Amino acid sequence: MDLPEIPAKVGPAALTSVLDGRWAELRRSVRTEMSGTRFRDGIELDVEQHRAQVLEQLHELAKSDRPRLGFARAYGGADDIGGSVMSFEMLGFGDLSLMVKAGVQWGLFGGAVQLLGTAKHHERYLRPIMDLELPGCFAMTESGHGSDVQHLRTTASYDPATAEFVIDTPHPAARKDYIGNAARDGRMAAVFAQLVTGGERRGVHAFLVPIRHDDGSPMPGVLIEDCGRKAGLNGVDNGRLTFSQVRVPRDALLDRYGQVAEDGTYTSSIESDGRRFFTMLGTLIRGRVSVAGSAGSATKRALTIAVRYGEIRRQFNRPGDPDEVLLLDYRAHQRKLLPALATSYALHFAQEELVATLHDIQGSKDVEEERQRELESRAAGIKAVSTWHATRTIQAAREACGGAGYLAENLLPSLKADTDVFTTFEGDNTVLLQLVAKGLLTSYKDHFEDLSPLATAKFAAEQFMGVVIERTAARKLIERLVDASPGRDDEDALFDRGWQVKLFEDREEHVLDGVARRLRRAASSSDDAFSVFSVFNDAQDHVLRAGRAHVDRVVLEAFVAAIDRCADQDAKLLLDRLCDLYVLSNIEADRAWFLEHGRLTSARSKAVVSAVNELCAQLRPHARTLVDAFAIPEQFLAAPIVAGEEQRRQDAQRAHEATPE
Amino acid sequence: MDLPEIPAKVGPAALTSVLDGRWAELRRSVRTEMSGTRFRDGIELDVEQHRAQVLEQLHELAKSDRPRLGFARAYGGADDIGGSVMSFEMLGFGDLSLMVKAGVQWGLFGGAVQLLGTAKHHERYLRPIMDLELPGCFAMTESGHGSDVQHLRTTASYDPATAEFVIDTPHPAARKDYIGNAARDGRMAAVFAQLVTGGERRGVHAFLVPIRHDDGSPMPGVLIEDCGRKAGLNGVDNGRLTFSQVRVPRDALLDRYGQVAEDGTYTSSIESDGRRFFTMLGTLIRGRVSVAGSAGSATKRALTIAVRYGEIRRQFNRPGDPDEVLLLDYRAHQRKLLPALATSYALHFAQEELVATLHDIQGSKDVEEERQRELESRAAGIKAVSTWHATRTIQAAREACGGAGYLAENLLPSLKADTDVFTTFEGDNTVLLQLVAKGLLTSYKDHFEDLSPLATAKFAAEQFMGVVIERTAARKLIERLVDASPGRDDEDALFDRGWQVKLFEDREEHVLDGVARRLRRAASSSDDAFSVFSVFNDAQDHVLRAGRAHVDRVVLEAFVAAIDRCADQDAKLLLDRLCDLYVLSNIEADRAWFLEHGRLTSARSKAVVSAVNELCAQLRPHARTLVDAFAIPEQFLAAPIVAGEEQRRQDAQRAHEATPE
Repeated sequence: MDLPEIPAKVGPAALTSVLDGRWAELRRSVRTEMSGTRFRDGIELDVEQHRAQVLEQLHELAKSDRPRLGFARAYGGADDIGGSVMSFEMLGFGDLSLMVKAGVQWGLFGGAVQLLGTAKHHERYLRPIMDLELPGCFAMTESGHGSDVQHLRTTASYDPATAEFVIDTPHPAARKDYIGNAARDGRMAAVFAQLVTGGERRGVHAFLVPIRHDDGSPMPGVLIEDCGRKAGLNGVDNGRLTFSQVRVPRDALLDRYGQVAEDGTYTSSIESDGRRFFTMLGTLIRGRVSVAGSAGSATKRALTIAVRYGEIRRQFNRPGDPDEVLLLDYRAHQRKLLPALATSYALHFAQEELVATLHDIQGSKDVEEERQRELESRAAGIKAVSTWHATRTIQAAREACGGAGYLAENLLPSLKADTDVFTTFEGDNTVLLQLVAKGLLTSYKDHFEDLSPLATAKFAAEQFMGVVIERTAARKLIERLVDASPGRDDEDALFDRGWQVKLFEDREEHVLDGVARRLRRAASSSDDAFSVFSVFNDAQDHVLRAGRAHVDRVVLEAFVAAIDRCADQDAKLLLDRLCDLYVLSNIEADRAWFLEHGRLTSARSKAVVSAVNELCAQLRPHARTLVDAFAIPEQFLAAPIVAGEEQRRQDAQRAHEATPE
Repeated sequence: MDLPEIPAKVGPAALTSVLDGRWAELRRSVRTEMSGTRFRDGIELDVEQHRAQVLEQLHELAKSDRPRLGFARAYGGADDIGGSVMSFEMLGFGDLSLMVKAGVQWGLFGGAVQLLGTAKHHERYLRPIMDLELPGCFAMTESGHGSDVQHLRTTASYDPATAEFVIDTPHPAARKDYIGNAARDGRMAAVFAQLVTGGERRGVHAFLVPIRHDDGSPMPGVLIEDCGRKAGLNGVDNGRLTFSQVRVPRDALLDRYGQVAEDGTYTSSIESDGRRFFTMLGTLIRGRVSVAGSAGSATKRALTIAVRYGEIRRQFNRPGDPDEVLLLDYRAHQRKLLPALATSYALHFAQEELVATLHDIQGSKDVEEERQRELESRAAGIKAVSTWHATRTIQAAREACGGAGYLAENLLPSLKADTDVFTTFEGDNTVLLQLVAKGLLTSYKDHFEDLSPLATAKFAAEQFMGVVIERTAARKLIERLVDASPGRDDEDALFDRGWQVKLFEDREEHVLDGVARRLRRAASSSDDAFSVFSVFNDAQDHVLRAGRAHVDRVVLEAFVAAIDRCADQDAKLLLDRLCDLYVLSNIEADRAWFLEHGRLTSARSKAVVSAVNELCAQLRPHARTLVDAFAIPEQFLAAPIVAGEEQRRQDAQRAHEATPE
């Protein structure tokens, strides 16, 4: 293989400007605002101190413009949805408890009021929400229903005699659980409950329910429990809410999608209960997108610490060299960190695309339902892939720093613990990947976020029209690349971007087609819903693979588009190699599939492994540049292992020379 | 495939008796002793409370016979090395801080005194060590040298004028770091330092150095720092020790392997400094073996919680069934937990073999050096594989329990956090797997624990005589199985144990042979040590794979031997299927290699994936039995999700029936 050399002179700034993208100015201003000790980590605090610090920081944040970004201008906001999500992503460089608490207040609670409520709610609540005068909760999940929220069991029964809703927890499994802001600070909650009016169930709706007096004591009929210590995110006060016949006025219903008249008559522009609920849920995807973004930020922070450490920490002598070998010069160490770094870049660009799409769709008046569904599906997929990547990579970064990586002062433990729940909150990743696959099988037309396996199987069986790969980013460029790439047999084909894209597209198409045929066969051979379920269940790993293959391809396209945007030719060359590493390490991890399906020969497959090694070696001198380009405020990288190591090494060297051999 | 049905009537007891093995009686008595609240977890405590609780529990433990097991009868011990290690493994069911603190006191500190010291040390110290009157530390690792301990830099210079050693930390990187028991409780430390006498360096030796007065204040010249909060294991007080010209008497030297006469003359029965040091290290492998064992216990605990939860937690309706579907009925959920469960069984049996070998070797007078080296290598390999398995599996168990798995009360967070460091302490796993490969390349003759990559490369190049697969457990049985297995082409071959063993042996042989040829070629083409290093480094992933392939084969043999020991025919059938799942999920994960090297056809490879699915389905009804067989004291499984869920579900069901549809 004969790859062009990457010029040694590439500096981080050229990369930062590609990474910063459309919201570059906002990113820069957030970096400046976050600098200083106000937004310090909470690593040495106990649970209560940590909660107090995070609340204080949240009040600091409320004084800035950022919480207003996502809200309507009419109420003091900025109508900048993308900027709002981006600012959550940037908060992810700091204490993730603050990111989550801010996400609960302004993203979930504020978002529910804005997107599910109407003018009367906006006028009354949006300003105090933005100012944090009214701290709130988003009370959807219950002890018994997390993934399957459509079947949650809290009830809201309308009483026409008093024109009130009665909010009730009919049994312990219907208790609201893991609710952020509930255990200590929340005054009000957006409670999701099954609406019952005129003796009929109308599906899940959201209600604004006061849960605490201003003095902090719970409202009558509201039982508040504390979820206690968690693996991480201990600056967030998660709690449990149980309602005993709590009465709220008729206008507590967030009634954009469904209204109850004074006499109890129910109206809605959406007839089906399920469809209405998933339409409501769909408006709330900013939370999911923000989790993906901040998982990315935390991963970048961990990689920056580990790469810097690998660049100064030495162990074992190499003969003929007075210095010991730098950890990052070992191949095994490069393999632990560099493919993960390449993937972080890839996911960064995919996230950027996702936020831009979200901004454009939610910011425009008339959006085809299909585009909205597609956006939801993309958000689900990127959230799943990004958060699993975070869990794996932060773990690898911890191990790459040895015992030092285990000390709280070196920041990796809290990064690991805080992000751990990301894989299962705001949608369990396994369930989310299923949703992605379902979207692909139904071309988004009648596709809602109904996550039940049966719905997936039925839709697939009834509606699948054949696989159509729809390119997402940089359509024309991708087309050119693919067209210019003949079926090449030489080793260099591995580095041909068109060949790579074709391989990813082919995998997606083949896997998806296989799933569809499997589910269809089942549906045609049996009318029995029960056995359709069994077939679905037998194919579950196949379904998940389809979702994954799709996301990988979308991520690659975003990387290709970003490289195309890069104006600096040297930086472009570096990004090109990094993209190769993303692609080839992805193929390497999945090469059993490519071999089994005749997409790679044994020789080509071995060449992929060699190419990953070669790319690691070629990129190794640029590792520091690549992490520095994330431009994480230095205060969040102040781990003593990174700060002190270089000094210690020099000391050691001097002393070593002074000791008798 | 036509596998025999597993009888429904297999109960946990028959399995427990296979699992309990040679030290069954000890295991039973430890279970009884651990029951009750004395040995409760420390999940709700802050760092200082947790340290206090663990110290108190350690004193409780000191009153039992267990800490004495590993010491010589002459000093009140029991000469039961295997029992001693086994009791650490059992401690792994409880608070891992206690296990680690006990390991530091009796395994590492006590072990150093017993194994590196002589009669004068034994008489003076062993009793107060066993009784915990003398809490001690094992001060080997330094800030600058962890994996490469041979090059640590603390000095111990003999001063014949006063017949004292002067212990000194010449510079910050030589500071002792992460030392358990140092920050709060230790009174004395076994300090590893470069011995200098008569102006000559004699390599690393251990010295007993008092670090604190009885009132807890540090000794003059000893600076003690606290490592502070860690990701986990916060009941252990890790600290840093810096020595400023601290004088200790001549008999502070633990002088079994090297002696310093009053005039400073140095004598040793082992001429080479390196060889002497690695001989000393070799005696201390009990610590590494104990870490592997307790990692296994923690993994079993996490799997038990996750499997029990998966057996009662339901989500999403299946049509035609009033109940929602149990999590463990989903294929994706089975795949998260059941192959890991099979691997836990496999590693359990391998650990049992390892402990028995350790017991027999360390308990006998004359042991060939080769057998000792082989034992060290096996301990290294099983420690690496077991602790990585723990990290991965506990993570999967956490995710399998969703948000509930993130709450401290449900125990998984502390299991994850506490075991996280196991992959890098008592030997970094990457370095340990290299050691395994080196042992295989040099047939253990001149093989010491010198972990430098160059040593590995040189040894391999100079000494490799060709691969010889030496069977470890159940030699004759394995031989019979392999001989009875012709090169089968039918699908059922996947379930033929002989075919499986042959496949594992073949992989090991092929990988090892390839590494050896690579390193040899390099050595013959160049005399330049520097380029030998480069070749080694280029082959590092290949070397690690060789180590891994060897360990996998040894683990499989141990599983086969254990099944053979099982007297209950029904239980045997169940273990047989579980072993299939271990083997086939291992092959599945590595099937790219088998495909690339022509060991599996595409069709056979796909059949492996199907077989794993089928085995998951077949074993699913036995999942609860398989975890219950670990016989973990119920108090350590008292996670509210497991205890409360069944009740909540029944409540929910009743309420559901009462609500209008």
